[in-house]
Amino acid sequence: MRNILIEVEYDGTNYCGWQIQPNGKTIQEEIMKVLENLTGSSIIVHGSGRTDSKVHAKGQNASFQLQSSIPTPRLPLVMNSLLPMDISVKKAIEVPMEFHARYSAIGKRYVYQIHRGEHRSPLLRNYAYHFSRKLDMDKIIKGKELFVGTHDFKGFMSSGSSTVDTVRTIHSIEIEEKGDCLWISFEGNGFLYNMVRIMVGTLIELGTYKKSEEDIIKAIKEGNRNFAGHKAPPQGLYLDKVFYPLTH
Amino acid sequence: MRNILIEVEYDGTNYCGWQIQPNGKTIQEEIMKVLENLTGSSIIVHGSGRTDSKVHAKGQNASFQLQSSIPTPRLPLVMNSLLPMDISVKKAIEVPMEFHARYSAIGKRYVYQIHRGEHRSPLLRNYAYHFSRKLDMDKIIKGKELFVGTHDFKGFMSSGSSTVDTVRTIHSIEIEEKGDCLWISFEGNGFLYNMVRIMVGTLIELGTYKKSEEDIIKAIKEGNRNFAGHKAPPQGLYLDKVFYPLTH
Repeated sequence: MRNILIEVEYDGTNYCGWQIQPNGKTIQEEIMKVLENLTGSSIIVHGSGRTDSKVHAKGQNASFQLQSSIPTPRLPLVMNSLLPMDISVKKAIEVPMEFHARYSAIGKRYVYQIHRGEHRSPLLRNYAYHFSRKLDMDKIIKGKELFVGTHDFKGFMSSGSSTVDTVRTIHSIEIEEKGDCLWISFEGNGFLYNMVRIMVGTLIELGTYKKSEEDIIKAIKEGNRNFAGHKAPPQGLYLDKVFYPLTH
Repeated sequence: MRNILIEVEYDGTNYCGWQIQPNGKTIQEEIMKVLENLTGSSIIVHGSGRTDSKVHAKGQNASFQLQSSIPTPRLPLVMNSLLPMDISVKKAIEVPMEFHARYSAIGKRYVYQIHRGEHRSPLLRNYAYHFSRKLDMDKIIKGKELFVGTHDFKGFMSSGSSTVDTVRTIHSIEIEEKGDCLWISFEGNGFLYNMVRIMVGTLIELGTYKKSEEDIIKAIKEGNRNFAGHKAPPQGLYLDKVFYPLTH
């Protein structure tokens, strides 16, 4: 019996998100189906965390225990031959038996793509948030630093989460302009439900003068969702990387 | 009556290409349907050229004559409100009545994306050619210059084209590495049927030692398709820009 950690890329467009649910196609289920086909037995795959419907991953991670003769380095090729084309295993390594993709994670990086072109882009329709109005980039670049550090992010969480401890540390937020797109990258020790999308929506509202820095400070201090901005749509979001002590 | 030139972006994944055909969805037909809806009359839309099934465009151009009260600068917004999400008009300008998107074109730029990652990428599955084997980039960078200039490209054309004059001028071929992708950009006064895809396939075979520089020279000199390489798949190809005397 080996404990395996895989890195997974997926196009979330046609999925109801990562986590298995009774109605709807999920990435976790597709991976578990492949492992059941390969081994003949039901194997539980633990993701580093959920992603929502239409959210993508360049570097989701998942762990599972495997009894099989397939050598670990061959797993990506074998699994990819059975997985649908919008899911791919990029890497597989053997990890200690006590390792768990979710509980062993020490941090994550999400990236979010905003398309700023005047007209909607067919090539980016499933991969970016189209926002054509003018953005005050100085305000956004200054304002994003309000999120960095250790804060109670209760005001930046969607309802429906059972999380009690809402304190998280954001290590850095970086913004890069590529052509007419904006990529915002968030690195932290963890993120609450919809937290990245609400931070993106808040930064956009800051850049369009619908929110002020004071609103953000209040949203953080008082944990009040009303002072934060809207939740940016899912298709611009990518789970980019999961950090573990053993990989970094 | 105005003569209008539009610039169009599309995701070609779900289309049988640009040109109207009896069986299958085409981009030309979708645009003509929208114009018929808007004006109540049938309007012929002339593209700068065809693109094949699954080939994309960031800057296809098309012209048509319009009798309507919609101001030209409003056309993109109005047409985009009716077009499917995988087609978008990025720009509309009024051009002289004798202007024709195809016959007035003096050049085109195509770009081709090759994904060189070890494993297939779900996010690029419809947007790049996955080629994971090692490429000798020095060979490719040197070899591409054999195409530049004025040559008879008969050996780099798929059969099924009625073109008689197969002489074309390639102004430049540029290669850019972005992450684990290679972007090859071809600028020329015109391209034969499948010519870009066959040049890409030939460069890849040059980089894997399946073809030599001598093969390319022979393919050009003798117009013999057998000395050229395979036709790279459609999903990596983008019609990037069409050049007109009036726009440049």
